[in-house]
Amino acid sequence: MENGVAVTVIEVGPRDGLQNLSFFVETENKAALIRKLAGSGIREIQIGSFVNPRAVPQFRDMEDLVSSLGDLRSVTMTCLVPNAAGARAALRAGMRKLVYFFSVSESHNLSNVRQGREESLKGLRSVLAETAGTADAEVTVALATVFGCPFEGYLPKDEVLGWVERVASLGVGEITLCDTVGWGNPRQVEEICSSCRELFPETVFAVHFHDTRGLGLANALKAFEVGIRRFDAALGGLGGCPFAPGASGNIATEDLVFMFDGMGVSTGIRLEALLDVTSYLREIVPGVVVTSALARAGLPRPRGPQARETRASR
Amino acid sequence: MENGVAVTVIEVGPRDGLQNLSFFVETENKAALIRKLAGSGIREIQIGSFVNPRAVPQFRDMEDLVSSLGDLRSVTMTCLVPNAAGARAALRAGMRKLVYFFSVSESHNLSNVRQGREESLKGLRSVLAETAGTADAEVTVALATVFGCPFEGYLPKDEVLGWVERVASLGVGEITLCDTVGWGNPRQVEEICSSCRELFPETVFAVHFHDTRGLGLANALKAFEVGIRRFDAALGGLGGCPFAPGASGNIATEDLVFMFDGMGVSTGIRLEALLDVTSYLREIVPGVVVTSALARAGLPRPRGPQARETRASR
Repeated sequence: MENGVAVTVIEVGPRDGLQNLSFFVETENKAALIRKLAGSGIREIQIGSFVNPRAVPQFRDMEDLVSSLGDLRSVTMTCLVPNAAGARAALRAGMRKLVYFFSVSESHNLSNVRQGREESLKGLRSVLAETAGTADAEVTVALATVFGCPFEGYLPKDEVLGWVERVASLGVGEITLCDTVGWGNPRQVEEICSSCRELFPETVFAVHFHDTRGLGLANALKAFEVGIRRFDAALGGLGGCPFAPGASGNIATEDLVFMFDGMGVSTGIRLEALLDVTSYLREIVPGVVVTSALARAGLPRPRGPQARETRASR
Repeated sequence: MENGVAVTVIEVGPRDGLQNLSFFVETENKAALIRKLAGSGIREIQIGSFVNPRAVPQFRDMEDLVSSLGDLRSVTMTCLVPNAAGARAALRAGMRKLVYFFSVSESHNLSNVRQGREESLKGLRSVLAETAGTADAEVTVALATVFGCPFEGYLPKDEVLGWVERVASLGVGEITLCDTVGWGNPRQVEEICSSCRELFPETVFAVHFHDTRGLGLANALKAFEVGIRRFDAALGGLGGCPFAPGASGNIATEDLVFMFDGMGVSTGIRLEALLDVTSYLREIVPGVVVTSALARAGLPRPRGPQARETRASR
């Protein structure tokens, strides 16, 4: 709870959305997008990845991007780092909140980052060592395929919790539980999130849901109900294939905020301003398919002379 | 709870989906669709409306359709009736479960059925009188705009409950609470559904959610959690404008069943068979935009040699 905000919506579109694009988004457009997101009230934004620019050319401008946003004090900016070299580059650029990631599924981790989970855990130790000398630096961990792996299926809960424990035991204060492929369902989300919160009360848990099979917001609702207060989301529902209609990516920031807003759960984000940012996204990513239902349908607005209530009765 | 089924998913696509089409779907195709839906395990289907064929030409073949489905005993077939004449025609055709509908919002009712709510309540009495002589006939009521009206906004909860009470007091045993325009949110759904169940314990409540702003499944989840066990849904998410990408209609039957299935809540419906019906729908409604996320993404299936669990850990 910060400044009366009940939940923190973490915008990951600049990273998880833009990384899949086949063309480069100019640094000034990225910066403008991030500033507009901040202007709508978003307080934490994942701005990109410190990865090999040959692997992901979209992020070849990370140093310039961070530098150009140096005055943006209202927002916690985070970035992905795949290893100690990435962490070093991120710290050098001025980043202070780094997100290290690996998969709780061995085969998905091999496929995604070309190393096994034990190797990834070693990598995490290196990243922690790399940042240890920077007083205000923080490393969080995003665990992929927590709610299902495209190769192995649904992992046993104990195996998932085992990896959470190994990460937490290294002193990582925040862990993001990711439904990488949109296989999760509310009951499973309840069980895994509840167990995590019970077993690791010192750890802050965030969730990252994809809406691939339509359950993203239902899963977010359930996570909220069992005490999760930090939610990744991407403007426009980016994060799938950005030009394929319906290839859903992340839950859409607009829709998530609309849900919380309607429920009276404060996010600190102004929906009208956020929808203006969606329009800006369409400008800088021509042809992008926005899957946000709210962006498509618009805010509910009574249009009759009898208009009375613009908020749900409570 | 019937035959071990925890929730009843009521397929309304043949009515709420097809009614918006600009062309006629042949009676034999409608009948085949309904039979295939039944074959997937669906046990209640809204097959059409007994309305003026000049107003809705799609339903000009209702008598023939009902007649051609006379041997389909596994399914409860329902139809909309706007008035006593419609009820008479439905009964004559052989229908036994009739759904009368009006809106709890005066202006929406005026816009939709060209009469005020008091007039609609009189109409309900006529329909009840019309069916009173048929021993096995049942009239249920669908109340529109319970979770928001496009003209008036969110109605006060007491006004909504007042109309529920007036309907229930006429002896109507089942009432469907409809989010006609997709304005509802989980907290509001919880409050209205809980109040209805507490205040009218003799009445069975169903819900009908549209996914216009992305919250359809989250709302269904919440309704389930407060005891609702009957859910309208439409195959493919039909019910909006059927050829406009993203103009979401009803929650998609496929996605709703996927959610319940994953949660271990039995619907009696086989998802693979249901997805085959979605394919058939595409055949008989060429160009239809299926908004079901599951139909698009497919059932989660691990595709690696390491495949282990195909169900979420519980």
